[in-house]
Amino acid sequence: MSNVHEIYPAGRIILREVGLRDGLQLVKRFPSTAAKRKWIEREYDCGVRHFEVGSFLPARTFPQFADVLEVVGGVAALPGAHGVALALNERGVNAALASGVAEIGSVVSATEEHSQANANRSRNEAIANIRRLCELRDGSDHRPIVSAAISMALGCSIAGPVDPNEVIRLAGQCYDAGADMVAVADTVGYAGPKAVGELTAAVVRIAESRPVCVHLHDTRGMGIANASAALDSGARVLDGSLGGLGGCPFAPGATGNVVFEDVVFLCESKGFATGIDIEKLVAVRSILRDEMPEETLYGALSRAGLPGRAASLPG
Amino acid sequence: MSNVHEIYPAGRIILREVGLRDGLQLVKRFPSTAAKRKWIEREYDCGVRHFEVGSFLPARTFPQFADVLEVVGGVAALPGAHGVALALNERGVNAALASGVAEIGSVVSATEEHSQANANRSRNEAIANIRRLCELRDGSDHRPIVSAAISMALGCSIAGPVDPNEVIRLAGQCYDAGADMVAVADTVGYAGPKAVGELTAAVVRIAESRPVCVHLHDTRGMGIANASAALDSGARVLDGSLGGLGGCPFAPGATGNVVFEDVVFLCESKGFATGIDIEKLVAVRSILRDEMPEETLYGALSRAGLPGRAASLPG
Repeated sequence: MSNVHEIYPAGRIILREVGLRDGLQLVKRFPSTAAKRKWIEREYDCGVRHFEVGSFLPARTFPQFADVLEVVGGVAALPGAHGVALALNERGVNAALASGVAEIGSVVSATEEHSQANANRSRNEAIANIRRLCELRDGSDHRPIVSAAISMALGCSIAGPVDPNEVIRLAGQCYDAGADMVAVADTVGYAGPKAVGELTAAVVRIAESRPVCVHLHDTRGMGIANASAALDSGARVLDGSLGGLGGCPFAPGATGNVVFEDVVFLCESKGFATGIDIEKLVAVRSILRDEMPEETLYGALSRAGLPGRAASLPG
Repeated sequence: MSNVHEIYPAGRIILREVGLRDGLQLVKRFPSTAAKRKWIEREYDCGVRHFEVGSFLPARTFPQFADVLEVVGGVAALPGAHGVALALNERGVNAALASGVAEIGSVVSATEEHSQANANRSRNEAIANIRRLCELRDGSDHRPIVSAAISMALGCSIAGPVDPNEVIRLAGQCYDAGADMVAVADTVGYAGPKAVGELTAAVVRIAESRPVCVHLHDTRGMGIANASAALDSGARVLDGSLGGLGGCPFAPGATGNVVFEDVVFLCESKGFATGIDIEKLVAVRSILRDEMPEETLYGALSRAGLPGRAASLPG
C-alpha cells in the first residue's frame, strides 16, 4: 500500500499549487530554477505543502521542465512538502522513479478523439500506461503515489460535450489500474458548477475512501463556483495556480488554472481550514511578476485584500 | 395587490441589469443619456427585461442620475421591459411615483452603525420610510412594485461581521411594511458561498411566495460562486452589471457588481433558461468602453467566448 492517506488525509482539504507545471505550459518566458525554488519556498512558508513541479518530458519540446530534477529536489528538502511530477511514457516514468519524486501523475483523455489527437494513443492504451506505471511503482523502493488525471472530463476541445458516464468508467479503470488518486480535470474550462458537482459526486462514490482531486480552469469565470461545487460534492483535493497562471490554448486571452489564493479564500469562507496564510500567499505573486512580466496575473484577493483589511480602510 | 408575480413570476429566473444605477455610483465619467438608452435598447434586444436605471436623489450630489426621468421613459417605451429606480426619502418617492417607474427601490442597512454613518438615520427609521413608501404606492394609480434592499447583509464596511438573524429580522420587517420583494445585498463583497446560501435560504423561507433578490459584488472573486449558492438556495432574482461595472469604495481596485454576462452563463449552465443571448450581450460592452474609457471592465465570457466557439478554434 502507498502512503496516500498520509499525504492526502481523508476529510482534510488539500490545495495543490500547480503553477510550476500546468501554469508554465504556455508562458512566453520561464522562471529560472532559482526562482522556481524561491516560489516553492515562499509558498511553503505560507503553509502550502503540495506542489506540482514539472514533467518528465523531452527537454527539447518542453524546455520549461528541463530543470525538473532540481525542482523535485527543492521540494524534497522542505520537511512535509510533497512534490508531484508528470510522466506520460515508460521512459518518463523511469526517470520520475529515479528522481525520488513523491507522486507521479499520468493522464488519460476523457474522449477518444482527444486521446488520439493529443497523445497519439487510444484511451485503452493510456489506461494500460497507468497500469504499467503502477507496476513499476510497486517494484520501486520508495513507492511514490500515483495519480491519474482525466483531462477534458467536463468538455472536450475536440469532441465538445463529454458523457459523464465515460468519465466515471475511466475513473474506475484508473483506480483498478492501481492509481491512488483520480483527478477530474476541466482542462479547457467548459463547465459550470452543476456539471462539476454532479461528476465529482459520482467519482467520489466510486473512489470510496480514496482521494479525488478536482482540477479546474477559470476560462469562463466559473472556476471558484466550480471549486465550491466540487467541495460540496465531497472532493477534498483541489488544484490551483498562483495568480491563475496558465492560459488556455483554445481560448486566447482566457485565464488559466483557477486562482490559487482565491481558492484558499473560498475554502476558508466555507469553514475548511487550509493552513495557508492568504496575505502572505498574495505577496508571492511578486516572483511571478518579476520572472514572467509578459504574463497577466489574475485574482481578486490580490486587488481587494481580505475583508478585515478593507473594513479598516477609511470611508 | 401589486403585479409583482407578473414581473417576477415564481420559479422563473430574472436577471437584472443594475449597471445604469449601481454601476454608475463611482465612475469617473458618465454615459450620455443617449448612450444609456442605447445600452438599455441593446440589452433589450439580447433578451434582458429588468433594468435598474437610476436614483431619485439630488442631482447636485448625484449628477449621473440627473437624467433619470428620460431613462425611465426609455425603458417604459420597450414592450415588456421593467424599470427600477431608487428613492430614499419622501421627496424622492414622490418624484419616483410621478415618473411612472414600474418599481421603486428602497434600502435599509443591516447594521445600526452603517445606517447611521451612511444614511444618518436608524434602521427603524429606514423601515418606517419603506412603510411610508408603500402607503404612497398604495395611494397611487399605477401602484409600482416596491423592493427593499438590505445593504451590508453579508458583512459591513463599518461593523464587520453581520449577524444573519438581524438580516432575517429586517427582511421580515420589510415584507411586513409592504415591500413586494427583498434584496439581500453583499454590498462590499465580503461573503463566500456558504454564508450567501444560508442567508438566502433563510430569507426565502420567510418570503414564502414573494420573490427574493440577491445582489452580489465580486470584490473578492466569489461573485459567481455566491450567485450559484443563491440559486441553489432558492433565489430567483439576481442583479449584475455588464462588465462588472461598479467598484467598491472600500476596496480600491476591486471589481464592482458581479459580471452580468457571466451570471447569464452560470444560470444557463445550471439549466435555468434566462432568455438572454450571451454573445450579443458581450458585444454591448462596446458602449461602456466608448462612454467610460477610464473604467476597467471585467468578465470571463468576453475574453474566452462560449465553449462552442472555443471548440471550433484550430489547435
